[in-house]
Amino acid sequence: MTSTPVRPRRRRGRPDGPPPSQRTPNYRQLRNPFPTMDVFSGDEIANMHETALRTLEDLGLRVLLPEARRIFAQAGARVDDATEMVYLGRDIVAAALTTAPRKFECIAGAPHRDIHMALGALTFQPGAGAPNCTDLKRGRRPGSGRDFRELIQLTQHFDVFQMVSPLVEPQDIPTHLRHYFTVEAQLTLTDKFPFFFSRGTPQAMDSFEMLKDFRGLSDDAFAQNPHCYTIINTNSPRTLDIPMAQGLIDFARARQLSIITPFTLMGAMAPITVAGAITLSHAEVLGALTLTQLAQPGAPVCYGTFTSNVDMKSGAPAFGTPAHFQASLAAGQMARFLGLPWRSAAGSASNLNDVQAANENQMGLWGCLLAGASVVIHSAGWLEGGLSVSYEKLITDVEVLNMIAELCAGANAGPAEIGFDALAEVAPSGHFFATAQTMARYNTEFYEPIVHDYTNFGTWTERGSVDATHRATAVWQAILDADERPEVDPAKVEALQGFISKRTKEGGAPPES
Amino acid sequence: MTSTPVRPRRRRGRPDGPPPSQRTPNYRQLRNPFPTMDVFSGDEIANMHETALRTLEDLGLRVLLPEARRIFAQAGARVDDATEMVYLGRDIVAAALTTAPRKFECIAGAPHRDIHMALGALTFQPGAGAPNCTDLKRGRRPGSGRDFRELIQLTQHFDVFQMVSPLVEPQDIPTHLRHYFTVEAQLTLTDKFPFFFSRGTPQAMDSFEMLKDFRGLSDDAFAQNPHCYTIINTNSPRTLDIPMAQGLIDFARARQLSIITPFTLMGAMAPITVAGAITLSHAEVLGALTLTQLAQPGAPVCYGTFTSNVDMKSGAPAFGTPAHFQASLAAGQMARFLGLPWRSAAGSASNLNDVQAANENQMGLWGCLLAGASVVIHSAGWLEGGLSVSYEKLITDVEVLNMIAELCAGANAGPAEIGFDALAEVAPSGHFFATAQTMARYNTEFYEPIVHDYTNFGTWTERGSVDATHRATAVWQAILDADERPEVDPAKVEALQGFISKRTKEGGAPPES
Repeated sequence: MTSTPVRPRRRRGRPDGPPPSQRTPNYRQLRNPFPTMDVFSGDEIANMHETALRTLEDLGLRVLLPEARRIFAQAGARVDDATEMVYLGRDIVAAALTTAPRKFECIAGAPHRDIHMALGALTFQPGAGAPNCTDLKRGRRPGSGRDFRELIQLTQHFDVFQMVSPLVEPQDIPTHLRHYFTVEAQLTLTDKFPFFFSRGTPQAMDSFEMLKDFRGLSDDAFAQNPHCYTIINTNSPRTLDIPMAQGLIDFARARQLSIITPFTLMGAMAPITVAGAITLSHAEVLGALTLTQLAQPGAPVCYGTFTSNVDMKSGAPAFGTPAHFQASLAAGQMARFLGLPWRSAAGSASNLNDVQAANENQMGLWGCLLAGASVVIHSAGWLEGGLSVSYEKLITDVEVLNMIAELCAGANAGPAEIGFDALAEVAPSGHFFATAQTMARYNTEFYEPIVHDYTNFGTWTERGSVDATHRATAVWQAILDADERPEVDPAKVEALQGFISKRTKEGGAPPES
Repeated sequence: MTSTPVRPRRRRGRPDGPPPSQRTPNYRQLRNPFPTMDVFSGDEIANMHETALRTLEDLGLRVLLPEARRIFAQAGARVDDATEMVYLGRDIVAAALTTAPRKFECIAGAPHRDIHMALGALTFQPGAGAPNCTDLKRGRRPGSGRDFRELIQLTQHFDVFQMVSPLVEPQDIPTHLRHYFTVEAQLTLTDKFPFFFSRGTPQAMDSFEMLKDFRGLSDDAFAQNPHCYTIINTNSPRTLDIPMAQGLIDFARARQLSIITPFTLMGAMAPITVAGAITLSHAEVLGALTLTQLAQPGAPVCYGTFTSNVDMKSGAPAFGTPAHFQASLAAGQMARFLGLPWRSAAGSASNLNDVQAANENQMGLWGCLLAGASVVIHSAGWLEGGLSVSYEKLITDVEVLNMIAELCAGANAGPAEIGFDALAEVAPSGHFFATAQTMARYNTEFYEPIVHDYTNFGTWTERGSVDATHRATAVWQAILDADERPEVDPAKVEALQGFISKRTKEGGAPPES
C-alpha cells in the first residue's frame, strides 16, 4: 500500500515574498536526542524493584479474570480463587522478563510509517480516551463518531504523530458496534500504526480480522510483528480487571502490542511519594507483563507509567507538576533497569487551551523526554486531565512536538556551517542577509511554524489581535477542509464494510466489563 | 541588613478545608539538576573556538572608544585608529582567559540573597530592558517609573528570581537622572543582587557610590566581591560601541560583574547557521572579556549569548525556536570549553500572553537548562521579542520557574518513601488518602501553584471560566497591594535621597551614546 505524501502544513509566503520553504524534515522515525536524567540512585532503583517483587509475592494482585488466574497458577503462583488474589513469585517474574522483547518493529499501513520500538526511540501520540471534545467553533460536547473521524484525520496530517490514539470516545456509536467504527476509521483515514480497544475477546478478534483482511496479511505475517496495539490500565492499587486481563492475553497470543500503563495519582490510588507510587506502578506492570509472557512468550509489550499527583487541598488530579516530572524520570529509570521500551505521558488539568494548558503540557513533555520515553501519549490536545480533547490545543501542541522533532535532527558544524568566509564577507555592524552562505540556506535553514506568529505588535493589531488558540482554529479547519486521505484499495474498503454489515446483523460484540 | 521573609504566594485552602501548605522550599540558591546536552562534537567546538580566534586576529573588532583601543594596543594588539579596528592576537586572549575567574560570590542586600556564580549554578531574572509594558488592567504603554518600581516589587516577591533585571525602561524619567531612579528603586524595594546600566562613566560612578553608601561598604569591601552587575551587548557583527566598551572598563576596574552578551539573530546580524552565529558571538565575547581582564586582571565576568533566528520570510525575530535552542546548547559548550559561568536567555515573539508566548518561553527555557546556563535572563514576562514586559506573563512564567526550582530539590527514595508498609496498608482497588504515610506528608509533599487551577470543568465554569492569564492579574495586583518591602535603614534612605537631590541640582549625568 502506498500513501499520499503528507507534509506539515506550511505558512505561505506573501505574494511578493520569497517562495515557500523547501525544508523537508523527516519526523517519521525519531531517535531521542536528549540526555536521560535520573531522579534516584541506582541503589534506590534496585530497592524499588525489590520492593515491587516483594509486593507481588507477599501482598499479591487481585485478578478478576478466572482464565488469568489459571495461567498464573499453572506457572506456579499461589492463587486464592475465593479472594481472587494471585501471589506471584519473583522467579516467575524473572522468567517473564527474559522473554519480553527489548525491541521490535511496529508495522503500519505504509512502510515509511513503520516504527522501531526500543529504548532510545521516540514516538508521539495525541491525547487519548477523552469522553468529550471541544473546539472554538462548536464548543465542548460529548465525543461523537464525527469527532473521532476528524481527530483521526488531524492525527494523520501531522507526521510528528507516529501512532494513532483513541482520541475521543465516539459516544453516539452503540457500544456493541463501536469497535467496527473505530477500526474502520483508522484503516481508511490513516496509514499510521493503529490502536484497538481491549473490551473483551469478541471485539479483539473482530478487530484483528478486519486488520488482517484490510492489510492482506496471512495469520503468520500478522503474528510476525505487531500491526496494532492496545493500552492496558491496571486498576490501581493492585487490581487487574476482566477486560484488561483478557486484553493482555488476547493481544499476547496474537503477538500484538500491549502498552501496560498503571494510571496512578500520588496520594489517591497510589502512595503520596514519587518513590512509593512508582514502586506500586512497577509492581503492577511486572504482574501484567508476566501474564503476557505466560500467555505467549516473546509477545511484544511496552513498559508504561502515568503517575502524577493530586492537589491535596481538593483531591483534584494535577498534571505537568514537579511530582509528575519526577515520576516520569523514576519510571524511565525502572524501564532502563529492565531494558524495555516504555511509554510515559504529558497532559494538562486546564479547562481550556490557555497558558496553563501550554505550560503543563510542555512541562510534562520535558519530563517524558528527559526520562527517555519511547512513546509519549497525550502529547497534544489533552485537557481537563483527560476529560476532553481540544482541536485547537492539538494544533498548538503539534507546534511544540514539531520543534522537538527538529531537535532530533541535530545541527552541523563543519567548515561550511562555521563559515569563516561568511564572517569575512560582512563588515563590522553590517548584516548577513545577502551573504553567499545565507542565500544558499535561507529557504531551508529554519523550522517554519504552523501557528506561531512573528509579526510585530502594530501589524498583529491591524490584523485583528488574534491569539494562538484562535489562529489554531483556522489551521484545523483548513486540514479538515482539504480532507487528505491515504491511498486505499476500494475493493478492500468494500470488503471491510461488508464484514461490518455482516457482523452488525449478527448482533455485533458487546464490550466486556 | 535583614529582610522581611517573602514566600511564593499560596492559594488559601477553603474555609472548611485543610490548613494552608506548610511546604517551605528554598528557591534562593539553586544548582542545575539537569544533564547538559551537546549539539556539536568536541572537535567541532574546538574548531569554532579556533575560527573565533582567527576572526579576532585577521578580521578584527571595531572598537569605537579610543581608551579601549589604547588598552588593547598596550597589550600588543594591532590597532588602526583611522578605521577604529583592533586585531587581537590569540596570545592576548589566552592570557585574559587565565585571569577571568571561574567562580565568585555575588553579594546582595541580605546574606540569604547572595549568589554563588559558577558553572552548575542556576539563577533566573525576569525579562529585561523592554521599552513598553502591558497588563490587562491598564493596557500596553511606554514603560514609566511607576511600572519600573512595580515590576521590581514583583521581582522581589518571588524567590525564584535571584537577580534583579532592568525590566522596563522608565521613559518618563529624564535620561540624565534615570540611573538615580533605577538604583534607588533597586536599593529600597529589593534586597536582591542589583543591575546597573552601562551608559557612561559618570552614571556608573554615581551608581557605585550610591550602592556603597547605602550598603555601608568601604572601597575595599566593595572591590572584594561583585555587589552589582551590568549587561554588555556588542553591536554584532564585530563592533564594540562607546558606552559598552566604557562599561566593560568601568565595571572591571571596580571589580563589579559584566555579563557579556552579544545579541545575534541568525540570518541578520549573524551567520544563518547555529555554528556560524555562535562562532561570531564567541569571538565577540572573547574580545570584550579580554578588555575587562586588560583593564583589571581577575575582574568578574560572565560569558553570555543570546542567539536566535529570524523568520526568513519576513526578517522578523523569532524566539523559543529549534535554532534558538541549539544556539543555547552550542553556547553552553563554548562556556564549558572555557570553564566560565555564563548566561543564556528565554523569551517570546508573541504579542500577548497566550499559548504561543507560553510555549516559546518554556522551549527557550529548556534550551538554557539543558545548556547548563548559570544565569537565565528574560525567563519571565518578556513579550514581542523584548519590546514589552507583561505583568501577567511574569506571573504565569514564575509558575514554570517555581516548578523548575522544585526539580532542583530532587526527591528521596529511602525506605520511608518507598514505603512497603503504606502499600500493605491499602487493599486492592482501595485508596491512599488516609494511610499513615499520606497523613504525615499531605501538607508538604507537593508544590502548590500560584495561578494554575485544578478545579473541574463544571466548577470552573460556575466560577466564570477565567483563564490563567486573567487569573494572573489578580495575583500581581494582590502582591502590589500588599506592598511588602525589605527592611531598610531610614537613615540610609534619607542619605540616598540627599545624594540624589544634590546630584540632580548639579545637573545629573547624561548617558553616553
